Amino acid sequence: MTYRTLTTLAVVLTPGWAAAQPADIEYATAADTAFIFNTLLFLVGGFLVFWMAAGFAMLEAGLVRSKNVAMQLTKNVALFSVAAVMYWICGYGLMYPGAFDAATGLWPDAWIVPGVVGAIFAPTVLEPVGPGAEAIADLSYASVGSDFFFQLMFVATTASIVSGALAERVRLWPFLAFTVVLTGAIYPIGASWQWGTGWLAQAGFSDFAGSTLVHAAGGCAALAGAIVLGPRLGKYDAEGRVVAMPGSNLALVTLGTFILWLGWFGFNGASQLALGTIADAADISRIFVNTNMAAAAGALAALGLTQALYGKVDLTMVLNGALAGLVSITAGPLDPSLFGALWIGAVGGGIVVLAVPMLDRMGIDDVVGAIPVHLLAGVWGTLVVPVHTADASFGMQAVGVAAVGGFVFAASFATWTVLAALTGIRVSPEDEVTGLDIAELGMEAYPEFARG
Amino acid sequence: MTYRTLTTLAVVLTPGWAAAQPADIEYATAADTAFIFNTLLFLVGGFLVFWMAAGFAMLEAGLVRSKNVAMQLTKNVALFSVAAVMYWICGYGLMYPGAFDAATGLWPDAWIVPGVVGAIFAPTVLEPVGPGAEAIADLSYASVGSDFFFQLMFVATTASIVSGALAERVRLWPFLAFTVVLTGAIYPIGASWQWGTGWLAQAGFSDFAGSTLVHAAGGCAALAGAIVLGPRLGKYDAEGRVVAMPGSNLALVTLGTFILWLGWFGFNGASQLALGTIADAADISRIFVNTNMAAAAGALAALGLTQALYGKVDLTMVLNGALAGLVSITAGPLDPSLFGALWIGAVGGGIVVLAVPMLDRMGIDDVVGAIPVHLLAGVWGTLVVPVHTADASFGMQAVGVAAVGGFVFAASFATWTVLAALTGIRVSPEDEVTGLDIAELGMEAYPEFARG
Amino acid sequence: MTYRTLTTLAVVLTPGWAAAQPADIEYATAADTAFIFNTLLFLVGGFLVFWMAAGFAMLEAGLVRSKNVAMQLTKNVALFSVAAVMYWICGYGLMYPGAFDAATGLWPDAWIVPGVVGAIFAPTVLEPVGPGAEAIADLSYASVGSDFFFQLMFVATTASIVSGALAERVRLWPFLAFTVVLTGAIYPIGASWQWGTGWLAQAGFSDFAGSTLVHAAGGCAALAGAIVLGPRLGKYDAEGRVVAMPGSNLALVTLGTFILWLGWFGFNGASQLALGTIADAADISRIFVNTNMAAAAGALAALGLTQALYGKVDLTMVLNGALAGLVSITAGPLDPSLFGALWIGAVGGGIVVLAVPMLDRMGIDDVVGAIPVHLLAGVWGTLVVPVHTADASFGMQAVGVAAVGGFVFAASFATWTVLAALTGIRVSPEDEVTGLDIAELGMEAYPEFARG
Repeated sequence: MTYRTLTTLAVVLTPGWAAAQPADIEYATAADTAFIFNTLLFLVGGFLVFWMAAGFAMLEAGLVRSKNVAMQLTKNVALFSVAAVMYWICGYGLMYPGAFDAATGLWPDAWIVPGVVGAIFAPTVLEPVGPGAEAIADLSYASVGSDFFFQLMFVATTASIVSGALAERVRLWPFLAFTVVLTGAIYPIGASWQWGTGWLAQAGFSDFAGSTLVHAAGGCAALAGAIVLGPRLGKYDAEGRVVAMPGSNLALVTLGTFILWLGWFGFNGASQLALGTIADAADISRIFVNTNMAAAAGALAALGLTQALYGKVDLTMVLNGALAGLVSITAGPLDPSLFGALWIGAVGGGIVVLAVPMLDRMGIDDVVGAIPVHLLAGVWGTLVVPVHTADASFGMQAVGVAAVGGFVFAASFATWTVLAALTGIRVSPEDEVTGLDIAELGMEAYPEFARG
Repeated sequence: MTYRTLTTLAVVLTPGWAAAQPADIEYATAADTAFIFNTLLFLVGGFLVFWMAAGFAMLEAGLVRSKNVAMQLTKNVALFSVAAVMYWICGYGLMYPGAFDAATGLWPDAWIVPGVVGAIFAPTVLEPVGPGAEAIADLSYASVGSDFFFQLMFVATTASIVSGALAERVRLWPFLAFTVVLTGAIYPIGASWQWGTGWLAQAGFSDFAGSTLVHAAGGCAALAGAIVLGPRLGKYDAEGRVVAMPGSNLALVTLGTFILWLGWFGFNGASQLALGTIADAADISRIFVNTNMAAAAGALAALGLTQALYGKVDLTMVLNGALAGLVSITAGPLDPSLFGALWIGAVGGGIVVLAVPMLDRMGIDDVVGAIPVHLLAGVWGTLVVPVHTADASFGMQAVGVAAVGGFVFAASFATWTVLAALTGIRVSPEDEVTGLDIAELGMEAYPEFARG
Repeated sequence: MTYRTLTTLAVVLTPGWAAAQPADIEYATAADTAFIFNTLLFLVGGFLVFWMAAGFAMLEAGLVRSKNVAMQLTKNVALFSVAAVMYWICGYGLMYPGAFDAATGLWPDAWIVPGVVGAIFAPTVLEPVGPGAEAIADLSYASVGSDFFFQLMFVATTASIVSGALAERVRLWPFLAFTVVLTGAIYPIGASWQWGTGWLAQAGFSDFAGSTLVHAAGGCAALAGAIVLGPRLGKYDAEGRVVAMPGSNLALVTLGTFILWLGWFGFNGASQLALGTIADAADISRIFVNTNMAAAAGALAALGLTQALYGKVDLTMVLNGALAGLVSITAGPLDPSLFGALWIGAVGGGIVVLAVPMLDRMGIDDVVGAIPVHLLAGVWGTLVVPVHTADASFGMQAVGVAAVGGFVFAASFATWTVLAALTGIRVSPEDEVTGLDIAELGMEAYPEFARG
């Protein structure tokens, strides 16, 4: 087959294409080119953030004991699926109820309480197939489908954070019921305050890609669940000292961390929301390198700190340090210099090393370290934004963290409490000792590998 | 280094570039921009579908018993490599023999039997390096290399489907011999009937990204092999009841499923074949979200159905449900609404849950569930296309499924039978009990993990 | 939410965007479009090469014994992090000290020894955020951030090669100290000779994506370390015969190989350095398919050769054969035909099968086969370039390999020797027998899987 055939085929396969090749040259319009680049950014960024769902699944499956691995995997696949459906049913509609019009001072009718609670029960509608001229007039920024795809992955990330913290003891169906509420209502309402141009956005809060809106929010939902659930059996001895329950597969944990690190380039990079100008392209490049630097710095900080404090490097701390670096830079990955990204990430990594034992002293059992990594580093990353971003203020950052964190914590706490009363949320002590895999699923993740 | 240096370097590295920056502004032509976008779509879509080869490898390695893991990994790497060579030698040439010319009613000479069997033994030839002006006149759609790259990944997918179904008993070299025939002839001929503008395309069959051409075809090849091979020793007891042979590593199975889910965005999205207009970009976005929704719905359907039928959720069913959702939407990922994608995927997920025990009752031993996932959900997805796609008809869809499925099944059955007669295709009973890793490879996948 | 909302939002979110939609159509300039495409190429290529860090981690974790897995994972995360910091501090500045000006015959002052050693201690500076008109005049090729991101991943790859060869016996901190020197100085200086437009580039050496500059360099650094370190305890018996120490997890090795194969599309493809013209797009497509073909051919060559030599296929050889095929094509992935890529890759795969026992006869213990795969196949790939590339000569290729390889080997040998004298680089025999995980980290990768 020669290389001419493809051209021939193209004429057959794409009607109208041949007609688009006139003798006199046709130029690409700036709007069309920008639309395609912007849409491509959301799609590529979106599939990278989708990949983070696999990262969380591997990270969490590696950090639980082998008797709970199949259940942890099940939860991760199921929560993503629930998020995909709920965000379509009402999440996206709640999160983007419409733009505040500064000229008139009015909100669109889609807000029920303007800036605070938006329209509900409006399933997402996409553009028509092969949009024609009249639809194209509305399509000058990026396709709705690409935006929906990208934003969906963020709500799934929020839910993934919860599953890790509550591993090894929460029952499957109540966990999924909580996920329905979190992805269909709690996250979208909180995120709409900023990304839906709600009251926080109006007030000047700054959270570029979601240190607060995604990570601290997920961490607050996890914290509420961990408090209501209580720690795993045997996690603390009679004197309250921690009993180590090491993860069953550190190769999976490392794989999960690398997956998350990779996905974060999409998470932060595509949060620029546009690739259609050279300024946007250059800014996305800044975001990529700053994101990478913060992760590296977080890992190195945890490496050095565990060596200094304990005389031995701790691999899970190094991995969580990298993740904390990533969370820390997420609120403002564009403005810092590479050195700025380095110290922001390093502090994030240090926070994790110090906070993990602190949480244990408080009797809060967080199986994978989700609360230090996502909540504490998320708060840190949000508060530090004003150092590099001129139009952000420390006070407003604190208000945003408190408002979103407080709302998500309260709503999650209420939801967990109601679920606990209605159906119970915790497996029986016998099932917990047996392991959730055999007890709830009747299968094992590694049926042939003997226990050492 | 300041940021000016890169500009300086660019002048040195890319001769002629400086000259392309005249004082008066030069605009990008629509044809060039579209060509680059289209090529980029094939390359990004192609590497995502390449990644599916890893997904199949992990899925299958996790679903076999540990004594057969190294062999399953070997088969997956080898089949991809065989596909890459065979598709170059003759597959691509067979699949795209040339476009039917509706104006003249003629086929190019490259068809031996017009619309049915195309040119053979014509290795793929790429464009020249750095195509100049005369070549560029032929290059107005996308580069041949990018199209070859993308299409190659589809034939590899087809072969991957087979390896899973026949695991734990088929011998390596006969399996690779079958792969030679499948990827060099069977798949390309079947696919040429539609994508090579053959008789099915002329007749109005509709299969956007290959529910039939790839997935049902792979499933038929697997079914033929499973029948000729027979079930694994001990799979059915004296009364024909199934003896469970659980997979050795469900973390790998889950990882494989996430990889396939990710790769499917490329599989379906880049099957739009163009990204050069805003209509194409918007359509690809639709495809991404519909693909994702169908997967989520398939997983949730399997989750709910296994709970309802068996009182316990089954992780491997949930994962296969997600895959079945993906296969189901592949014949028509563009036209359905998100709700359409949801129910198409959910039915696909349900099919798997119901079909797995049905196959077992028929004594067909499909180690990974490839036949329910790829063949049955592929048929479902193909038949349902007319619900959302105006110019598709149920009758023509049935004809297409029957023609491709029947051809691939018959050709595969013949090939397996010939191989069985010539060389044997099954390991000895002793080797099967020992495990293929020690027997055929002399190594173990997990040499240090004791058997429980 | 209707699809009009996004357009509305866009106006709010991107100030100035609305103004860019005049009644009379605005066209995209060729320079802007090319800049965005070029930057996108670096970012996508860069994240694919980033992913190779995960591939090396999985490959190496699977090839060591389970008592050393956690340490191998730690080293891989840590070396990437060190590389990210060192390349920012001085690596990038050393590697790109400035372009030789052929018109004047002058080098910029940034070279200390023109063409040989460049400026040091100049941390990388990115473009300003949201570059305005004056900055944009400098931004006509691609963003510095995207180039830095892409190039950083190459230095990390070089360091990853070393960690595998020295596994199971090198101490963590001395290894990281070596990584500081390798990524901050040795690699950047060697690479600057070619990619920094240094003396090798002036002399006509040809190494498209780094068979020599990255892979042979990494292999030389590994070889120097392996010699200074000596083999693992018990690797050779009293008569010098090899004692097999099989890898603990071949599923991870296979996963790592697939990850590397995927990442290589970015490694070679984005080394085209431009996507802004249809000639570049078509060339990148050539590179993708040639890269894939070489990998497939390398795998098949190793498959056939191990069957022929040993009567059994060896999975780890097949995987290393694929990697050797990839390394082999890396020096010249653009110019060969698909058949050329096939035989170049196949020879690479054959080299590995033959070289692994040869190294063992020399008493050089290379745990993962890094020296055959990266050094020997890298030399092969570099020397074969003139067959397909008109302006390359065998003599100059040999000079380049000898110069870079000699320099990296000598500098690495000196560094390892100094480190051995200063701090020691090898764990104690007791720790080596116990395993580095317990001895140095105090944790296990698979604490629950009993040893068989």
